Amino acid sequence: MPLRQWQEIQAVPRSTELIPTLVEDGDDLLILDQTLLPAQPKQNRLTDATAVAEAIATMRVRGAPLIGATGAYGLAFALRADASDRALDQALESLAATRPTAVNLLWALRRVASVVRPLDPAARAARALAEARAIAVEDAVANAAIGRHGLALLREDRGIAAPLRLMTHCNAGRLATVAHGTALAPIYAAHSDGQPVSVWVSETRPRNQGYLTCWELAEAGVPHTLIADNAAGLVLMRHGIDAVIVGADRIAANGDVANKVGTYLKALAARAHGVPFYVAAPCSTIDFDCPDGRAIPIEERDGAEFGAAALALGSPMTNPAFDITPAYLVTAVISERGVLPPASLGQWRN
Amino acid sequence: MPLRQWQEIQAVPRSTELIPTLVEDGDDLLILDQTLLPAQPKQNRLTDATAVAEAIATMRVRGAPLIGATGAYGLAFALRADASDRALDQALESLAATRPTAVNLLWALRRVASVVRPLDPAARAARALAEARAIAVEDAVANAAIGRHGLALLREDRGIAAPLRLMTHCNAGRLATVAHGTALAPIYAAHSDGQPVSVWVSETRPRNQGYLTCWELAEAGVPHTLIADNAAGLVLMRHGIDAVIVGADRIAANGDVANKVGTYLKALAARAHGVPFYVAAPCSTIDFDCPDGRAIPIEERDGAEFGAAALALGSPMTNPAFDITPAYLVTAVISERGVLPPASLGQWRN
Repeated sequence: MPLRQWQEIQAVPRSTELIPTLVEDGDDLLILDQTLLPAQPKQNRLTDATAVAEAIATMRVRGAPLIGATGAYGLAFALRADASDRALDQALESLAATRPTAVNLLWALRRVASVVRPLDPAARAARALAEARAIAVEDAVANAAIGRHGLALLREDRGIAAPLRLMTHCNAGRLATVAHGTALAPIYAAHSDGQPVSVWVSETRPRNQGYLTCWELAEAGVPHTLIADNAAGLVLMRHGIDAVIVGADRIAANGDVANKVGTYLKALAARAHGVPFYVAAPCSTIDFDCPDGRAIPIEERDGAEFGAAALALGSPMTNPAFDITPAYLVTAVISERGVLPPASLGQWRN
Repeated sequence: MPLRQWQEIQAVPRSTELIPTLVEDGDDLLILDQTLLPAQPKQNRLTDATAVAEAIATMRVRGAPLIGATGAYGLAFALRADASDRALDQALESLAATRPTAVNLLWALRRVASVVRPLDPAARAARALAEARAIAVEDAVANAAIGRHGLALLREDRGIAAPLRLMTHCNAGRLATVAHGTALAPIYAAHSDGQPVSVWVSETRPRNQGYLTCWELAEAGVPHTLIADNAAGLVLMRHGIDAVIVGADRIAANGDVANKVGTYLKALAARAHGVPFYVAAPCSTIDFDCPDGRAIPIEERDGAEFGAAALALGSPMTNPAFDITPAYLVTAVISERGVLPPASLGQWRN
């Protein structure tokens, strides 16, 4: 796909020189290395499946939709080296193992595999690449639709002039996707429409993905305020917040939501103050094979993510990367297909 | 007071060489500089009221009970330089302004002032010093009682052999007090009794006072696990926790509790999982003149506390140091006088 087309897909309102999170370059993939953000925006070149797996595991690319698309390219790269059934199975397994919680990765890998498996091995690599590309493009398109549906929901009974005051968690913006973001898509849509919007952003310890959210909101010119994760309860108590909106790494069939650790606490606080709690995610995030949150594996990451001062304590650490927000706390799920309460997600099964 | 007596007051079970948080040395006060902990345990010498105010404002001494006792010494030092009515008023005001949320500071300053004001100025400094000393000693004694009452409450229907699995927030241990701690006092009492106890400790961004808690629990040999603040909801959901226990900076007459920012989120999560939520604090923390949490001033601290990476973003920041946990989420308050539900705190008025 020509670079121009990528740029069109990935354009965020009011920013013309964005570095894309993911872009093809010849036979390679260029990713924006998110471990270096916001200090140093820099692209990394990925040339094989091993490099793709490393980039996902170390969170150079992160965000459920983005690791899905990136993983799909990784599988295509693996088939370029060896397109046998065995290589296909092995590559799928090793790429899937890089991050266990987000279902989008598994979904994308299985989608590519199911398309190429019936083919002659010689035809597989090219077809896998086409499918990876389709997944990437569809992600951008889906997120634009999430932006429209979400904005209509947030706007509901108010005029376009009324300011929207939103709170988010982690980064579910353009950096977490191929383009537009999920939770931030309605925010960009509002901003693009000329509707005043402001966003409360939590640091999101221990990896501080909230800094990525600040960085991309600043890039797009969207007003925002950074707070400690701990401050979310007080902000919901003392400031007028219209809605909390977050992304998701996996949504169980019953509407339980796995998302970045700390999401659950925000959902509890939103409920305590009568503030709607929305989850914005493409339908590929819904795992209809997963009955509820208890069945979602929670990735445990290295305590080193806490930083040197914590490590120096020598204390035992536990570092789950995600938590489960029970469906009862979720006002609605916003996907590319519209808006549904969590109990009705079955409508999007087909 | 001789050093030996201080050491007796401040001894934490199983630790014999503790550096006291606060100790007289000749005409001066030696404080354990908590901004250097845990990396570098070091005492600072405070010789006048200005140094005391600086130590409180910059959190070299911190924790509601400890800043109360330290502030009392500061007022005594001020009177040593100038014991006029005007100097008394000015010193009280400037010391009280260093930290606005914790009521213990104001309480201690007013207590010293009310004792010395009727006296001849020439007699004031010595009497103020005696009163500051009394406040410090009473804090240690009160906290030991909190430990006994709290342990009885936590133990209730279980045997001494049953492990206690507790969660706390911030640091409400010996480092936040003259001795023993408040929230950690029952934990030390259990440990000293030979009852197995383990503690989940949150980092407590942005100042990471959870590291202080880890440090002093390690010092006392109490098993503990460090988590990100964001992980408290998942831990309460997936691990068996017997109780959440925290300190307080001010308790309103109706039982609303101001404590380190993030406390409210833990209280919400405890409620969601049927886990008791206890607040341990001396009666001096109860502000009967404050009707409810809305009347408690919340200290806003510098965004620089978030660290260099956050500052480099250039994003607006809000950094409230405390939040309000509504009384309905508080199972009971544990003080030196016993245990009461928040609605009954009036019983401790006299």
